[in-house]
Amino acid sequence: METNKEHASQWFKNLRNSICKSFEEIENIYSGEMANSEPGRFERRLWDRPGGGGGEISIMKGRVFEKVGVNFSEVFGEFSPKFQNKIHGAEEDPTFWASGISIVAHMNSPLVPAAHMNTRFIETKEQWFGGGIDLTPTFPDEEETVFFHNELKKICNEYDSSSYDRYSKWCEEYFYLPHRRESRGVGGIFFDQLNSGNWERDFSFVKKVGEGFKNIFPEIIKKKFNKNWSDDQKKQQLIKRGRYVEFNLIHDRGTKFGLETDGNTEAILMSLPPLASWP
Amino acid sequence: METNKEHASQWFKNLRNSICKSFEEIENIYSGEMANSEPGRFERRLWDRPGGGGGEISIMKGRVFEKVGVNFSEVFGEFSPKFQNKIHGAEEDPTFWASGISIVAHMNSPLVPAAHMNTRFIETKEQWFGGGIDLTPTFPDEEETVFFHNELKKICNEYDSSSYDRYSKWCEEYFYLPHRRESRGVGGIFFDQLNSGNWERDFSFVKKVGEGFKNIFPEIIKKKFNKNWSDDQKKQQLIKRGRYVEFNLIHDRGTKFGLETDGNTEAILMSLPPLASWP
Repeated sequence: METNKEHASQWFKNLRNSICKSFEEIENIYSGEMANSEPGRFERRLWDRPGGGGGEISIMKGRVFEKVGVNFSEVFGEFSPKFQNKIHGAEEDPTFWASGISIVAHMNSPLVPAAHMNTRFIETKEQWFGGGIDLTPTFPDEEETVFFHNELKKICNEYDSSSYDRYSKWCEEYFYLPHRRESRGVGGIFFDQLNSGNWERDFSFVKKVGEGFKNIFPEIIKKKFNKNWSDDQKKQQLIKRGRYVEFNLIHDRGTKFGLETDGNTEAILMSLPPLASWP
Repeated sequence: METNKEHASQWFKNLRNSICKSFEEIENIYSGEMANSEPGRFERRLWDRPGGGGGEISIMKGRVFEKVGVNFSEVFGEFSPKFQNKIHGAEEDPTFWASGISIVAHMNSPLVPAAHMNTRFIETKEQWFGGGIDLTPTFPDEEETVFFHNELKKICNEYDSSSYDRYSKWCEEYFYLPHRRESRGVGGIFFDQLNSGNWERDFSFVKKVGEGFKNIFPEIIKKKFNKNWSDDQKKQQLIKRGRYVEFNLIHDRGTKFGLETDGNTEAILMSLPPLASWP
């Protein structure tokens, strides 16, 4: 197992590096109306977790990405007695280890969707992978949505033929705001407690999800990032981001979990948009 | 009791009217850098609660008040089985009646604090008043804070000599963001389950809290509303408002309660700022 943990953690870190590089590349090739400003570059900050481990936040504020955060973390220790009962496999032993990568991108252009990707490997008395990718356009676009879901379906089909249906349904149910009676975005895939008994196979799927995000999202960005937008479209985007804030602070399990277990506030709330509106 | 409920509800409605009038008056006398735009005026929207009763939202977007919401509500019915155990006096009988007024003001000027006031009367098998006033400046100002607390102390002292200490401490503990290790603002007063056995005396206190807000907040506004501010001060205000959003969506009991009991989303989230930032 020691080697599995090392492999997973190393993969998440390498993926972080290659995604940051690919996003900086997008900043470079941009030629839209904000092209007079400098291309954005990631800044990194390390943080320590008092109970064990820590992470590294990479943040870029650029001309395509208004704010994008890429978090890598590897944490370990013991869950508090209050929490251990809520965690798979920790009921009798609070010891845990977890590593993952988490990305949230809020774009300058209201025509380009916000995106979120996360993959993680967790070990208690059990061990499993979890993660997902989802897209939040302000102005949903049929062609874009179909392309996005088809690409995810291809990735899932390589794992097994039923996973896309299950994971896209899971995503739809998870990213829902009951008080607004609306979805956060146009869905994607979401999975948790993935352990088929074949670690290499599951790991390979998780790697493909990460690689997939690195390929799919830039394709989506590049289709629209150079187009002009109106003030009214920007206003609509800020309202949509308000809903994003509502979801993350009221419902998101990762956010709740992090805040209630004394996680790194800056890393946890990196997902919040640079600007949001409740007019 | 029928008469008590009518008196309380009528008071909240009248207070709503006089506070709206007083805020429109502030819009009229403003002469700062945004004086070229028209003075704001309240707009009203009625809403029905499916389970019984309803309310009226008054919203103004003006040149002094960037967004101020004044909610009046009178609701009744039965708590869901899930909730009745959490409510004082509803453990055995889920029947309830509640009326109140709730105000949140977000100001254009970052030099003028945001303010919140709420008073309510609730009846289950028990009956009680609750409420409070608190202030959230972006740039705390000793003189302003001292004035604010002194005025609240005067109101509390008319009720009894220990209430200010208790209610201001309650406020400080309530409006606290543990994950940020900071207070939402500079405090104020907060009280709940107020029932001394003398309804008239308690009601009189609640009326003075409402009247007090109507007098104190405009005085605070007028001291600074005509002063110019810098872009950087505005940016700081938007970040402070981000914290306000975090408090309301993660911690505020009224918001949680409303959202989880199928309340009117527009009325509940009226408290959220017109624009907020997580840079």
